[in-house]
Amino acid sequence: MPILYDDPISGNGYKVRLLLAQLDFSYELVELDILNQETHTPDFLAKNANGKIPTIELDDGRCLSESNAILFYFAQGSRYWPGEKFDQADVMRWMCFEQYSHEPYVAVARFLHHLPEAPDPEVIAEKHAKGYVALDVMEQHLGENDFFAAGQYSIADIALYAYTHVAEEGKFDLTSYSNISKWLDRVSEQPGFVPMGSKPN
Amino acid sequence: MPILYDDPISGNGYKVRLLLAQLDFSYELVELDILNQETHTPDFLAKNANGKIPTIELDDGRCLSESNAILFYFAQGSRYWPGEKFDQADVMRWMCFEQYSHEPYVAVARFLHHLPEAPDPEVIAEKHAKGYVALDVMEQHLGENDFFAAGQYSIADIALYAYTHVAEEGKFDLTSYSNISKWLDRVSEQPGFVPMGSKPN
Repeated sequence: MPILYDDPISGNGYKVRLLLAQLDFSYELVELDILNQETHTPDFLAKNANGKIPTIELDDGRCLSESNAILFYFAQGSRYWPGEKFDQADVMRWMCFEQYSHEPYVAVARFLHHLPEAPDPEVIAEKHAKGYVALDVMEQHLGENDFFAAGQYSIADIALYAYTHVAEEGKFDLTSYSNISKWLDRVSEQPGFVPMGSKPN
Repeated sequence: MPILYDDPISGNGYKVRLLLAQLDFSYELVELDILNQETHTPDFLAKNANGKIPTIELDDGRCLSESNAILFYFAQGSRYWPGEKFDQADVMRWMCFEQYSHEPYVAVARFLHHLPEAPDPEVIAEKHAKGYVALDVMEQHLGENDFFAAGQYSIADIALYAYTHVAEEGKFDLTSYSNISKWLDRVSEQPGFVPMGSKPN
């Protein structure tokens, strides 16, 4: 059975756990504490030299890291990965957007608010400024589309849901983002949906 | 003929231009000046609401953005995209690594050194610290592998080459990175390779 190395606080890890739940895929969960440097032991670095979760160890011992690459791997052939070439690339496009223009601000603001010491207001202000730009792009897109790509729920939605639905933990105010709010509801109503803290079957 | 919107300074754009050259694929190039906000006009925002190059407009008018998603789109069925599912995901893994752990430091340090005003030394120090972590991960991987994924030259190498080969413009010192140096040579010796400033056929 594949082993998912993950930290329960991680939205990146939640992406993988949500997809695997929706696929009804069995796996073993090994929890590592990122704050306690448990992803920087020699054992873990042999699985992912970049020292980050989520990382998944397959039955043949090969390891795969980067949440969106893991989503891509497991979504192949499922309803969460569209069939047409442009649509597939558009799913990738929104997953790249998530990692470059959204996660470093929306996720990191939340992470900084979870640390024991109070976050630096200047750092938070920069995270908010850039995070709202990403949220604006999403809000506009969701004004004309129910989901991010291919006219269907896909791993692009899973990737963007993970940190958007907890953006308020990073002190983002989503009140005026009505399209995002409705999309968050649509995602949470998908068959097999599980909330963030859930464990594997 | 597809239209690539790009800025010649961009390594993200160079990724696409390098792959399209290696595929001997014809396209039209429209140059936009990011520093002059030419990616924030209403016309361009209708093509990519996130206001970033590279963005490509296909013959049917559909637009695709995010360099690594564009690479994914054009590499399908070519020698630059491996055939096996794990290998494909591993290519994605290194492209995600590039966008999250490499580009924000290695590329941004270069960008800041290209601006008219001198960069903030504290900002550069942070970019260097995190950029060297990414370079260390690459150096280690290339000690045991000629290329990043699937045992072959792929779009993962194209994605990582784009900003690594000009890291010194961001004042990174690659002298001690002998595996990276040999890999840079291997990439530049690939059939159809073109240097950064080259134009389409």
